[in-house]
Amino acid sequence: MSSFEDADTEETVTSLRVTVYHPGQTQSGIFQSIRFSNPEKLPSSEVVKFGRNSTVCRYTFQDKQVSRVQFSLQLFKKFDSSVLSLEIKNMSRRTGLLVGGTELGYLNKVELPYRCVVRFGEYQLLVEKQDGESLEFFETLFTMSPRPLLQEHGWPAGKPTPELCRPPPWSAQTTCLSACPTEMDENEC
Amino acid sequence: MSSFEDADTEETVTSLRVTVYHPGQTQSGIFQSIRFSNPEKLPSSEVVKFGRNSTVCRYTFQDKQVSRVQFSLQLFKKFDSSVLSLEIKNMSRRTGLLVGGTELGYLNKVELPYRCVVRFGEYQLLVEKQDGESLEFFETLFTMSPRPLLQEHGWPAGKPTPELCRPPPWSAQTTCLSACPTEMDENEC
Repeated sequence: MSSFEDADTEETVTSLRVTVYHPGQTQSGIFQSIRFSNPEKLPSSEVVKFGRNSTVCRYTFQDKQVSRVQFSLQLFKKFDSSVLSLEIKNMSRRTGLLVGGTELGYLNKVELPYRCVVRFGEYQLLVEKQDGESLEFFETLFTMSPRPLLQEHGWPAGKPTPELCRPPPWSAQTTCLSACPTEMDENEC
Repeated sequence: MSSFEDADTEETVTSLRVTVYHPGQTQSGIFQSIRFSNPEKLPSSEVVKFGRNSTVCRYTFQDKQVSRVQFSLQLFKKFDSSVLSLEIKNMSRRTGLLVGGTELGYLNKVELPYRCVVRFGEYQLLVEKQDGESLEFFETLFTMSPRPLLQEHGWPAGKPTPELCRPPPWSAQTTCLSACPTEMDENEC
């Protein structure tokens, strides 16, 4: 059984792979509460919160610069679709959330494409979605990138970055986005 | 100060007035945990859940026919708007949610108009939104209707009911939708 299959129903599940990067990640321990390379099965109804507060957030960043809840991800089902879609909402009143090239203010939300870089402060997260059959569960899988997901001089904040928000080349896994870190494992992009 | 104003900032807050009806409401006590006519101030970031489970739901229906979480309401902010919008999502795997004339399956969601009747099973809820300035808080106010919100033979389930989903006549409060109960207080419609 692959890690993207529900053990009970044998249905494939929607998978969210999240690759994170922060320039201080090795010294500061900001990601120490995230269990990397550990697939986690969650109910599709869950609003998954990311932020500083471990009581309300599923995934916490141990960093005082981060808002109590920075952003949330949630799945929903479009009327004309058999698979789950993914939405991101900025939950921080003080920090903008860059989703691809679009800046979200407080309580703004957008649907995430299959592959997209999300940024706030010095944080960079590459969120990749793979469709599954199950409507009950989905799975998250976190990886830490040793290098920035975006070249420092490549994509000025606030400018459109369409290359970072296109459907994933699942059928051609060797095709790599220009924003992918060049020294990541081959399986990552 | 009106009940729709934030005491700290003096900003007006978005208001959700929810009028509920169930044919067994007087005998069964299904609404006994809802505090009617009691305005409640909530953070705009909250996903407000309605259902049977009092641990996870803000508003509970004490009825075994109701799902653990039946549906959720959440506010969001459109990019081109200064006020908050309202979204409803069906969280029940076994029961459809009728929003106006549109049936939502599990995890389907739609934006709610200013005035709309929401139905599942024998439950009817008229949800009315009034805009406010505050992005931090909103307010809920529940009322129980002594009569059905929909005439039994008036609006077959699943058919469009545009009259139930139009902007509210806030500037002409005496204008009453045909779906409003005729014996409710004047302030209700």
